[in-house]
Amino acid sequence: MAEVVKKISGFPELLPRDRKKENLLIHSINNTFKLFGFEEIEVRAVESISSLLAKGETSKEVYLLSRLQNPEVDLTSSKQLGLHFDLTIPFARYVLENCGKLNFPFRRSSIGKVWRGERPQEGRFREFLQADVDIITQDNGQSSQDVLPNSNDIEIVKTVGKALEEMQKLGLPKCQIHINNRKLLQSAYRIFGIKDYEETLRTIDKIDKIGSDEVLNVLIKNGESNESATKCIELANIKTDSVTILENSLREVFGGDYQKLEGVAELSEFLESGINSVVVDLKIARGLDYYTGNVFETFVDGFENYGSVASGGRYESLTASMQENSKVSYPGVGMSIGVTRLMALMLTNELFICNEESDTDVLVLVNDQNSYSDSQKVCDLLRNAGVSSFISPVCSKFGKQIDFAAKRNIKHVVFIGDNGLSVKNIVTGNQIDFSSDDIKSYDDFNKITSSLN
Amino acid sequence: MAEVVKKISGFPELLPRDRKKENLLIHSINNTFKLFGFEEIEVRAVESISSLLAKGETSKEVYLLSRLQNPEVDLTSSKQLGLHFDLTIPFARYVLENCGKLNFPFRRSSIGKVWRGERPQEGRFREFLQADVDIITQDNGQSSQDVLPNSNDIEIVKTVGKALEEMQKLGLPKCQIHINNRKLLQSAYRIFGIKDYEETLRTIDKIDKIGSDEVLNVLIKNGESNESATKCIELANIKTDSVTILENSLREVFGGDYQKLEGVAELSEFLESGINSVVVDLKIARGLDYYTGNVFETFVDGFENYGSVASGGRYESLTASMQENSKVSYPGVGMSIGVTRLMALMLTNELFICNEESDTDVLVLVNDQNSYSDSQKVCDLLRNAGVSSFISPVCSKFGKQIDFAAKRNIKHVVFIGDNGLSVKNIVTGNQIDFSSDDIKSYDDFNKITSSLN
Repeated sequence: MAEVVKKISGFPELLPRDRKKENLLIHSINNTFKLFGFEEIEVRAVESISSLLAKGETSKEVYLLSRLQNPEVDLTSSKQLGLHFDLTIPFARYVLENCGKLNFPFRRSSIGKVWRGERPQEGRFREFLQADVDIITQDNGQSSQDVLPNSNDIEIVKTVGKALEEMQKLGLPKCQIHINNRKLLQSAYRIFGIKDYEETLRTIDKIDKIGSDEVLNVLIKNGESNESATKCIELANIKTDSVTILENSLREVFGGDYQKLEGVAELSEFLESGINSVVVDLKIARGLDYYTGNVFETFVDGFENYGSVASGGRYESLTASMQENSKVSYPGVGMSIGVTRLMALMLTNELFICNEESDTDVLVLVNDQNSYSDSQKVCDLLRNAGVSSFISPVCSKFGKQIDFAAKRNIKHVVFIGDNGLSVKNIVTGNQIDFSSDDIKSYDDFNKITSSLN
Repeated sequence: MAEVVKKISGFPELLPRDRKKENLLIHSINNTFKLFGFEEIEVRAVESISSLLAKGETSKEVYLLSRLQNPEVDLTSSKQLGLHFDLTIPFARYVLENCGKLNFPFRRSSIGKVWRGERPQEGRFREFLQADVDIITQDNGQSSQDVLPNSNDIEIVKTVGKALEEMQKLGLPKCQIHINNRKLLQSAYRIFGIKDYEETLRTIDKIDKIGSDEVLNVLIKNGESNESATKCIELANIKTDSVTILENSLREVFGGDYQKLEGVAELSEFLESGINSVVVDLKIARGLDYYTGNVFETFVDGFENYGSVASGGRYESLTASMQENSKVSYPGVGMSIGVTRLMALMLTNELFICNEESDTDVLVLVNDQNSYSDSQKVCDLLRNAGVSSFISPVCSKFGKQIDFAAKRNIKHVVFIGDNGLSVKNIVTGNQIDFSSDDIKSYDDFNKITSSLN
């Protein structure tokens, strides 16, 4: 039965030293989300299948659940459960379920696992961690833009931009957030006379992969006119961080029809908001179909081919399919950072710049079998002062015990010497005696050990 | 389709204010685990079915996975996946998979979700959070006790005891850890002439539920002699935190056979180790059959009927069924804190004593629609100093904006007044002017606002 310990493709697991790095990323993201006033919630791993399939062509990605005692799957039952494949649909359901108890606009953050039952490719996972922020509100009849102004979209991009910027301290290169607007695309395609909006969107999305020429061919093969298709590609190739260039480029493409374009004001506001590393990029489309306004993708400088590491957009009717004839809607805007994807990128390319020191401050050495309880007292003393420590599991010469500390990347050992207690920095080899009265707090420990560096 | 937003029984979700409390619990547990020198790892949610069913009668509890595109379950395939129902089996598999890269004895902690496909009862969940610590080592032929002395079992209980003690700061009542030893039970039952060890263990486990008399009846019905069954119950009713009483009680039950008992030394060591709130309780059995030595259960003072909130034990051969004829074994000892169960207990009984203040420090008020960008500058200033804040989504009279802050439990509002910036404590109503130069760090903010309490 050796196969039970075989790695399962697409389900990454980390060794302790790499998990420590992932925890640093998660901690950093959480801090930024908190700094920006988001409230953290956690959603359950499962949703009803009707909820999961309510929107978008994501059916192929769902893992279904059944009980071992009764392993039947019933796709027609509302009780059929599946694992969520993103944190947005469960969030929409959570908001509907708890709408009476939430304060709108509700600023939520969630860092959690999602699952996709697809065949894994390189850089793709079947279980992965996402970090989401959303601002969602309750709308009793006004249009989304009035109820939730574009400043919220800017706030989301600002939050994720800051989170990514903070991650630079851990070694992530600079990132650039690319913005487009579905309303702009929709109005543009109307002006161009595009017949199949959805299909054209999907085709344009491949422009980086297959190139403009091939996209043109596909669009024409799909029944669009040469002129319309050419215009689509001209539009898709507009990319700028300047409002003036954006407007001039659009005027060039649309001429007198420029005034009929929607969404330009929203995009311009982003460029005027002073957020770093934001660029309007009119070929960004996003696969899932619930976005209705701005859409976002994010690329890592020097690793553009790795694909987007943080994506999202504005949605107006995400909860609609979960409601019964309701006049209340919940427009929102959100973004999702692909934490597992970032981890994979940073590990593979050895980008992390954090130190490898253990979170454990001290290994307490054991003099001999009979003095274990003395070592235990030393360990208790350190822990009471907030100094993380444990007793050496190796009861032999100090050298071997220090070897164990070195393998675990523990920087200090403490032992009972001739003059009472001693602490040794095993990297520098420096050591100093101290009295048990000297260590009442972590600061005391820091003061003593800083002299050993 | 109203059913898609119906709560799914057994899958708890929390509102932001309660999730904040859960995060405090998790943070507290994590800190203790770190203080005691454990390395945090995360295991994937899925295991192969052969791994999940390798030990114990847990088959009824497993959720199986299948892909929507091909919703077939194949129980005979090693590729059939299920969700893990604890964090111990995935850990055993993780250790086998990574044994060449880990430092033994390996001290791991994990806080993660587990799933059980059973019918939920009160206080039981189908998705819940566990916090585990284990110490596991590699054994090339020695017996477990030599390779991993009983001091490791004590360390595990000490760690969990400290974690629970720290949770008292958040409102959890005192807890008591009950200890028994499988070797003691096994040798005792041998002495008593018990025929069916496993069945007797399961029956004794029900003593708190159905009472000693009923347990006696069941044991006799199972074919045990009246004398053996009576002895089992006498043994099960021994409960003490004194080594002397333990030894005297055992001598009373066993007479001359006392010397043949195993595991007494291990139990005595616990009572002599000076850990608070530990009691030897010889009716503790634990359902799962992978424990081979000490077993642990934990009860909350005043809520004993709620059942154990932290359990575990020593295991010698957990990985054996996953290995192919290996001469290497991985004995270990571990405990698991039921975080979701503790949350449910503390929420239901309103035990939490943490404050309800938001993690967001400041709501920045908006004077009017045209001054939004000024408010944005104030918000940026605060965030740069590490003060978490966001801009009021309500653009109306200050009173209404302050109402929003109050609903979100945000203690302070900052606004642009006649004399520059002002900060107001909305609980006391006190306010003070300050200059943007005054706030460079979170400490600066603290100094200014502490005068408003």
